[in-house]
Amino acid sequence: MKIQAKDRKTLLKAALGEINSDLAIINANVVNVFNGEVSKANVFVKDGFIAHVEYDDFADIKADEVIDAQGQYLIPGLIDAHVHIESSMMVPRNFAKAVIPHGTTTVVTDPHEIGNVWGKEGVIYMHNDGDNLPMRQLIDIPSCVPAVPGMENAGAEFFAEEIEELSSLERVIGLAEVMDFLGVINGEDRMMDIIAAAEKKGLYIQGHAPFLSGRALSAYLCGGPRTCHESRETTEAYLKHRSGMYIDMRDSSMCKNVPAIWAAIKNSRYLDQLCLCTDDRESEDILKIGHMNDVVRVAIKNGMNPVDAIRSCTYNTAREIGLKNLGAVAPGYVADMVILPDLNEMKPHMVFFEGQKVAEDGKMTVRIEDRSFDLETRNSVSVKDLTIEDFRIKAPIENGEVECNIMDFGDINSSNTVCSAATLKVKDGYLVLDDPDMMYVAVVNRYPGNDNIAVHVVRGFGTKKGALASTVSHDSHNLTIVYDKPENALVAANELKKVGGGMCAVDEDGTIIHTLALPVGGLLSTKVAEELAEDANQMKQANRALGLTDLENPILRIVTLALPVIPDVKMSDLGLVDVNKKELIPLFK
Amino acid sequence: MKIQAKDRKTLLKAALGEINSDLAIINANVVNVFNGEVSKANVFVKDGFIAHVEYDDFADIKADEVIDAQGQYLIPGLIDAHVHIESSMMVPRNFAKAVIPHGTTTVVTDPHEIGNVWGKEGVIYMHNDGDNLPMRQLIDIPSCVPAVPGMENAGAEFFAEEIEELSSLERVIGLAEVMDFLGVINGEDRMMDIIAAAEKKGLYIQGHAPFLSGRALSAYLCGGPRTCHESRETTEAYLKHRSGMYIDMRDSSMCKNVPAIWAAIKNSRYLDQLCLCTDDRESEDILKIGHMNDVVRVAIKNGMNPVDAIRSCTYNTAREIGLKNLGAVAPGYVADMVILPDLNEMKPHMVFFEGQKVAEDGKMTVRIEDRSFDLETRNSVSVKDLTIEDFRIKAPIENGEVECNIMDFGDINSSNTVCSAATLKVKDGYLVLDDPDMMYVAVVNRYPGNDNIAVHVVRGFGTKKGALASTVSHDSHNLTIVYDKPENALVAANELKKVGGGMCAVDEDGTIIHTLALPVGGLLSTKVAEELAEDANQMKQANRALGLTDLENPILRIVTLALPVIPDVKMSDLGLVDVNKKELIPLFK
Repeated sequence: MKIQAKDRKTLLKAALGEINSDLAIINANVVNVFNGEVSKANVFVKDGFIAHVEYDDFADIKADEVIDAQGQYLIPGLIDAHVHIESSMMVPRNFAKAVIPHGTTTVVTDPHEIGNVWGKEGVIYMHNDGDNLPMRQLIDIPSCVPAVPGMENAGAEFFAEEIEELSSLERVIGLAEVMDFLGVINGEDRMMDIIAAAEKKGLYIQGHAPFLSGRALSAYLCGGPRTCHESRETTEAYLKHRSGMYIDMRDSSMCKNVPAIWAAIKNSRYLDQLCLCTDDRESEDILKIGHMNDVVRVAIKNGMNPVDAIRSCTYNTAREIGLKNLGAVAPGYVADMVILPDLNEMKPHMVFFEGQKVAEDGKMTVRIEDRSFDLETRNSVSVKDLTIEDFRIKAPIENGEVECNIMDFGDINSSNTVCSAATLKVKDGYLVLDDPDMMYVAVVNRYPGNDNIAVHVVRGFGTKKGALASTVSHDSHNLTIVYDKPENALVAANELKKVGGGMCAVDEDGTIIHTLALPVGGLLSTKVAEELAEDANQMKQANRALGLTDLENPILRIVTLALPVIPDVKMSDLGLVDVNKKELIPLFK
Repeated sequence: MKIQAKDRKTLLKAALGEINSDLAIINANVVNVFNGEVSKANVFVKDGFIAHVEYDDFADIKADEVIDAQGQYLIPGLIDAHVHIESSMMVPRNFAKAVIPHGTTTVVTDPHEIGNVWGKEGVIYMHNDGDNLPMRQLIDIPSCVPAVPGMENAGAEFFAEEIEELSSLERVIGLAEVMDFLGVINGEDRMMDIIAAAEKKGLYIQGHAPFLSGRALSAYLCGGPRTCHESRETTEAYLKHRSGMYIDMRDSSMCKNVPAIWAAIKNSRYLDQLCLCTDDRESEDILKIGHMNDVVRVAIKNGMNPVDAIRSCTYNTAREIGLKNLGAVAPGYVADMVILPDLNEMKPHMVFFEGQKVAEDGKMTVRIEDRSFDLETRNSVSVKDLTIEDFRIKAPIENGEVECNIMDFGDINSSNTVCSAATLKVKDGYLVLDDPDMMYVAVVNRYPGNDNIAVHVVRGFGTKKGALASTVSHDSHNLTIVYDKPENALVAANELKKVGGGMCAVDEDGTIIHTLALPVGGLLSTKVAEELAEDANQMKQANRALGLTDLENPILRIVTLALPVIPDVKMSDLGLVDVNKKELIPLFK
């Protein structure tokens, strides 16, 4: 896609002062991303583009509307280099309402979650709900649907053909995080073809290369991706940067990578390959802490110069994603701008998108009408009629003990898991758990034509009783339940089937503590941030009631339990997956 | 165009060390354009691309060929951001032989001169002679053919249709210097349509905005162009940089802009919008002084950090022109590299293009075969049979004196000219010059179907006798002659018609002092640099013999006499042009 004035001749006339501009923002301290200066200027906007920036003649104000910035700073609208809107649990139009007042005017989204549920239709839905908003929601096409083919079944599979087809959507600019880095490094056909299809369509290739270094990192770069938001360690970020990667410095609800990454990059002679992103931010964090403005704030607190930090999520990102006329307060650039009183605090006074004031002092000033989409009314949880039997584990013996391979969380704060040996009891042909640290875990495929149910045992998950269920379960988003008794699992499963997905906590006696309904693809709610945050908070409380007391955000515990790209073992609808070997591990030895 | 490995899987295998690389350059001090560091490393090349850069394990040398850099520096191949190959008077294949040993592996060319002579065919010729060379000759499509429509007649006219058609050539990447800045600023259809056509084809828009500032500069930027190599003054460069332009810092045979521009940019917080270019360098300069390596050297001498200077004509330029995988010694990048013992001296020891050693210690190490093109054998000087009468000026009276408007060079060192009033003598119906500082000037249209001859009077040109003629006459390249007597003009004109164009000096007695034959389009010779430089030197001597003694390079005097974009007045085949008003000025008042 291109960002270009529709009527260039009119823009030129406004630049020359032959006609009035639509808007002049006067007395602004403009942050210049080209030379780093902050200078007093008047900025003229016509038809959504910046026609002229006047640094000398302050009496020259040829505009229909004049806003006096009164010496406040004027910066380009902030750009999120990589975000999954689904992580906010909001639909795109409501996500917009939440982030715009924080100064975010452009997001590079990866609709990967809904892509795994509704396939191409899901991507198209996210694109279309992102249409005609007072912000720019750009789309990178999900590259790895599902994440680990053969080890899990999602609602769709994307190959080069799907990438090519989706690239025709108006706001598609890239191929989203190429997570199957082994597929790239090893030159596997699926990833080679997908990348080639994206490059043919002129898309940039977004990377995802956790912990890669040395020859493996070189191979990944030779494979095409050129960005990474997955650096967690200082050396890791240094090596990637040295190899030529754009480093997307992440501050998500979970991953606080700024300190480690900035420690790596701060000594670099050049900072223009450093960008900022949120990746995954919850509604509550967006509401209370902020969005890209908060990432900038965090960067500044870690020692980054404010102008450098602002450049990182404006002009640098525009270059990273290959878009011209975006990310600067300069003639010919799109008039996405933020007025703010303080560069360190990063609290926007006014936000402008394409020259229109869209937010002021934390509130939207334009109305985003509600919309209806057929997809939002459809129940994506396609599960057969379940019985208690589905959640019991039949043992190879009638009574006694049996040696098992179970999934084991080593640490309550880590989503890393190992496979452990355990001796479990069997009674009347079924496995019985009597260790309070152990729970059953079921992953129920929830897509049409597939009735897979994998049932296993997990230790150290954190809940002590009842059932916790979620259709948010990266990346295939199958119905995932951790439970004490099959009866409770059934209650939770039926509840989520009924409401079309979401999260549900069931107490040990079978009563539902709370349901967070996410009826859009089993991932999103149509509620606005304020309502959703409240709902999510109740869900967190319910998680805690079941025993997940030690986590800041207990909701995140279950959603990565079936993500078979995080070592060593994870569940899928096929069973327990050895992530490194890409093999299934049987429960019974 | 894209720069991409043809067989990515093989490249990946080399990156991983599973197969041998073709070449390893070991013990190199690699200049890293991403973080500015200079570090010891081994660099592995496969199929023309860099597979891996190894900074740690120096024992790991899996390659068929190993070159030991012995601690010398390894930098990316140098890129010229803007050059007219025609200014070297060499055909593209011979230009390559001259610049490659200096470390230039990529040039962004504007075949504007030959475009004015042979039209699309000329551009295609330059493109095709640039094929399969041991360097990368990229093409920006000439945007302004002719420079000033209506005020001159060249061999072709380019509109949006021609731009679209030429954009299909393989190595076309941009629209070349948009010189008609008034056309852009005023939103004239021709330039708007040409720019829109280029943008539609995904080309970048190269600018040319001498002395623009304020609202005019803003309008030019709103019009599309985003680069400029025409900054001559410090403030000018500062303002353009602040407005978001890429600044192409020029060091041509004529324009030495580095000191003024670097003074403007050196205080900028960011240097990534600074690039380097030669624009116009003569064969002799290339031979004796150098090419891009010399521009880097000049930048360093002016106080620029060597790594910054190298980055300016490698990675910065690659981003300016929108090409990926170019301009860095990093995995996945094309293996254009230079080994050199000293970063300040910038004298390449070895030059590599796409992984192949192409020059060593100032000499080519690969052979560029000579080629034949039909266009090279055709005489482009299409002029009717001329007579002495064509070069005389018929006056409105028979005898006496007449008031005239003449072209007046104010300063021997400047190509700026004004229109002056002069009282000239008339004898037997013809103008007679008796001021030794005055000469006749004729511009003879040399294209089929046009017999225009404009004859006028020039003062202060510099020659004192004889005739000086040239078919190199920017930008329409009509046959331009400055002469004392019509007889001598006829001798010079007939000589250039015979040899197919070039330059010719005729003494006052009608004898030819020297002819520099440029039979390819009347602009280029098929001689190699060494021979051509000698020939051009003789031409300079001949210029001096006619009186042009005070100029370092007298050849350049005549070539801008008919360039109606340089104020205040210039000649064309239509007469004396008022450059600012775009009007013709009659000789007789």
